[in-house]
Amino acid sequence: MVAENKKHRVVIIGGGFGGLHAVKQFAGNKSVEITLIDKRNFHLFQPLLYQVATGGLSSANIASPIRSVVKKQKNVRVLMEHVKDIDLASRRVRLDFEDIEYDSLIVATGTKSSYFGHNEWERFAPSLKTIEDAIEMRRRILLAFEMAEIEKDPEKIRQWLTFVVVGGGPTGVELAGAIAEISRSTLRKDFRNIHPQDANIILIEGSDRILGAYEAILSQKAEEQLAGLGVKIVKKTFVTDISDRFVKIKSPDGKEEAISCRTVLWAAGIESCSLGKKLSDQIGAQTDRMGRVFTNSDCSLPQHPEVFVIGDLGHFKGRDGKPLPGVAQVAIQQGRYVSKLIQRRLKNGNMPPFAYRDLGSMATIGRSRAVAQIGFVKLWGYLAWAAWLFIHLIGLVQYSNRVLVLAQWTWNYWSFSRTARLITYPCCTNTQLQEELEKKRCDGDNAKFQ
Amino acid sequence: MVAENKKHRVVIIGGGFGGLHAVKQFAGNKSVEITLIDKRNFHLFQPLLYQVATGGLSSANIASPIRSVVKKQKNVRVLMEHVKDIDLASRRVRLDFEDIEYDSLIVATGTKSSYFGHNEWERFAPSLKTIEDAIEMRRRILLAFEMAEIEKDPEKIRQWLTFVVVGGGPTGVELAGAIAEISRSTLRKDFRNIHPQDANIILIEGSDRILGAYEAILSQKAEEQLAGLGVKIVKKTFVTDISDRFVKIKSPDGKEEAISCRTVLWAAGIESCSLGKKLSDQIGAQTDRMGRVFTNSDCSLPQHPEVFVIGDLGHFKGRDGKPLPGVAQVAIQQGRYVSKLIQRRLKNGNMPPFAYRDLGSMATIGRSRAVAQIGFVKLWGYLAWAAWLFIHLIGLVQYSNRVLVLAQWTWNYWSFSRTARLITYPCCTNTQLQEELEKKRCDGDNAKFQ
Repeated sequence: MVAENKKHRVVIIGGGFGGLHAVKQFAGNKSVEITLIDKRNFHLFQPLLYQVATGGLSSANIASPIRSVVKKQKNVRVLMEHVKDIDLASRRVRLDFEDIEYDSLIVATGTKSSYFGHNEWERFAPSLKTIEDAIEMRRRILLAFEMAEIEKDPEKIRQWLTFVVVGGGPTGVELAGAIAEISRSTLRKDFRNIHPQDANIILIEGSDRILGAYEAILSQKAEEQLAGLGVKIVKKTFVTDISDRFVKIKSPDGKEEAISCRTVLWAAGIESCSLGKKLSDQIGAQTDRMGRVFTNSDCSLPQHPEVFVIGDLGHFKGRDGKPLPGVAQVAIQQGRYVSKLIQRRLKNGNMPPFAYRDLGSMATIGRSRAVAQIGFVKLWGYLAWAAWLFIHLIGLVQYSNRVLVLAQWTWNYWSFSRTARLITYPCCTNTQLQEELEKKRCDGDNAKFQ
Repeated sequence: MVAENKKHRVVIIGGGFGGLHAVKQFAGNKSVEITLIDKRNFHLFQPLLYQVATGGLSSANIASPIRSVVKKQKNVRVLMEHVKDIDLASRRVRLDFEDIEYDSLIVATGTKSSYFGHNEWERFAPSLKTIEDAIEMRRRILLAFEMAEIEKDPEKIRQWLTFVVVGGGPTGVELAGAIAEISRSTLRKDFRNIHPQDANIILIEGSDRILGAYEAILSQKAEEQLAGLGVKIVKKTFVTDISDRFVKIKSPDGKEEAISCRTVLWAAGIESCSLGKKLSDQIGAQTDRMGRVFTNSDCSLPQHPEVFVIGDLGHFKGRDGKPLPGVAQVAIQQGRYVSKLIQRRLKNGNMPPFAYRDLGSMATIGRSRAVAQIGFVKLWGYLAWAAWLFIHLIGLVQYSNRVLVLAQWTWNYWSFSRTARLITYPCCTNTQLQEELEKKRCDGDNAKFQ
């Protein structure tokens, strides 16, 4: 009798877009028992993280406590823990404090920033993955203007007012556009010795156009809009070195050059979280170049139909043979799909292979400036920006009531201001935090977080 | 001819309530040239800092960029710098990067937390002065519930769910009340293994009543309201030791006891910033027990009519012979007063001695719970809370448009939620930050903040 009542144990690792949408799809199902594990206590609305990095929104505006999001779903328990490993053979997830058994496992831990083997660049050029990253970027950007104001030497002032963004994908474009707006509008009247609008903002891209995943016409429109904000775009150029005083670049003709600057932001590369490799190793498979796990057409792991890898961590071949892009929509749709599949299987059913429905993509460049492609429709300028705003607000509202973000944006828009312009955590760079974290973790006992 | 055009140089140290109101009082005066120096780039609305510490508001909600606040005042320049010393003889303020001469100087650097000679307690019991402090407190409070949820041992769970607040002044009362609300309402349905409402919240006070600066009836009402929220108040009791596992206390009968707990918050003492002692030393005077500078009846420094010490840093004797309290209103009124005085003097006029007008004081305990005394009127419960809300919103709006705070509060009130419940900066305690900061500062060059 007991066996009949036994619930199907689903473990979901990661409370990002993929994990949360998988959880929600299980709502009301009393035959499953879900454990959602995340090392952070909040879901981060990553597409708006650059707004925190540039003082437009507060971190709490784009982060929803995971427990709040799923609190009404009685079949879910949430654990704020770190996953050390997954044991596919014994169907266990190893955490710092316990092991958890699963019947079905959904792994959705996403990606982290990659410095292409140059991790020593990280302290000079922070990237944008976490709330702490965003606050560190914000600190550096705002501090640069403060330091320029204090400085007397014109050459040093120029260094402080030179901002280099590495990587011309959506994040790089958004950052460069936002810094341009800060210097051209927000801070315009704030200083007495310097003219913030003189700031040099340089966007460095390796290929021959920015927003390479978009149609060529939109790359061109994005470049025009950025140029209109005074951003200098340097294409077909690679970074060869970074320090706290310069970025060295190499153009296609082999010419090397050092850009003298104090603020460098990294938006160039991502790679999978370490769980990707751990999973692939256990099934004797390789990951792809970015560390992503190759999955079956139902998002499951080869040889392990009970394990699913979704979102950025998975390499899922799209219809064109290329992997699906690392965007929120892929994770969301896969999360819903595998959740449905697991529930069908419990009733001895099945599902057709996962098919990604491309709802379009968009990148914002600044106030009333953006590019968007939705199906065959391509938009730029004000219309694209309005579409972007609308879609992101809808997205935010899904997780918790975010009318306040709308209020904040309305205010920012009409007042040309950015009210979250705080320089906090004076010296706490990403790297230092990381070192601290590692050190603490080794202390054992429950001292992990204290 | 040049001498005639020379402007009167006013230097103001500190962008808190005192400094900012002094600056504003100079608005439109073309015969002065003001330099406002603060080591932070924002004004902090300190009375609401506990709301950040308890997840009710974001840091950006209560912090206004100083440059924004004074941007329209053309006679002001702002420097984000650290003041190393003041040389009264040569009338110079020594900064990290330069020296600045003044004709009139206003020192308004306020206070910092004091551990009564037990600085080793700081890492176990953070205090509440800065945004970083508030975020650290928030991290510890929220993390305690997460750790309790993971823990299996009932004794350890009880430790994690025991919160000790040291000090029964307004900050201690507000923190204890807020933690009680978090556990009783906000998190009530968030966990599966623990019952957050079982949390023990203990408020420790040395004297025989909490809110000692208020009338006795209000202390009693505050105690009743806290008790109604389930806070245990321990009076006439001193802390003798703190670790990461316990707080040792000593009651008046000499009995020592250890409270087993993982979260301790310090709201017990403050002392002046180091500039207080540096100033007093130069005039051959003593500071008071809290390190505050004794001032003349016009807020000026003895022997130095051109130097004013206002707000928490000054010891100004009130009519009853006792020093004025360390509240925002004293700083605001003194800031306005010395600004007027300096301007009168420029026209060879003078002002009567500074007289503090007590507008009342209030402390909030929770949702619809507060105490207030305004002249002869004493309020508690809902009415006091409404008054508190109104006055603090007016206060916030003064500095920048803070309608969003109202929106946030309205939302929190109706939904019983606290949306800024983020656990951030995993291991970055106050102390570690401080050490980092000191280390960096010694590195010299412009590396100070980088």
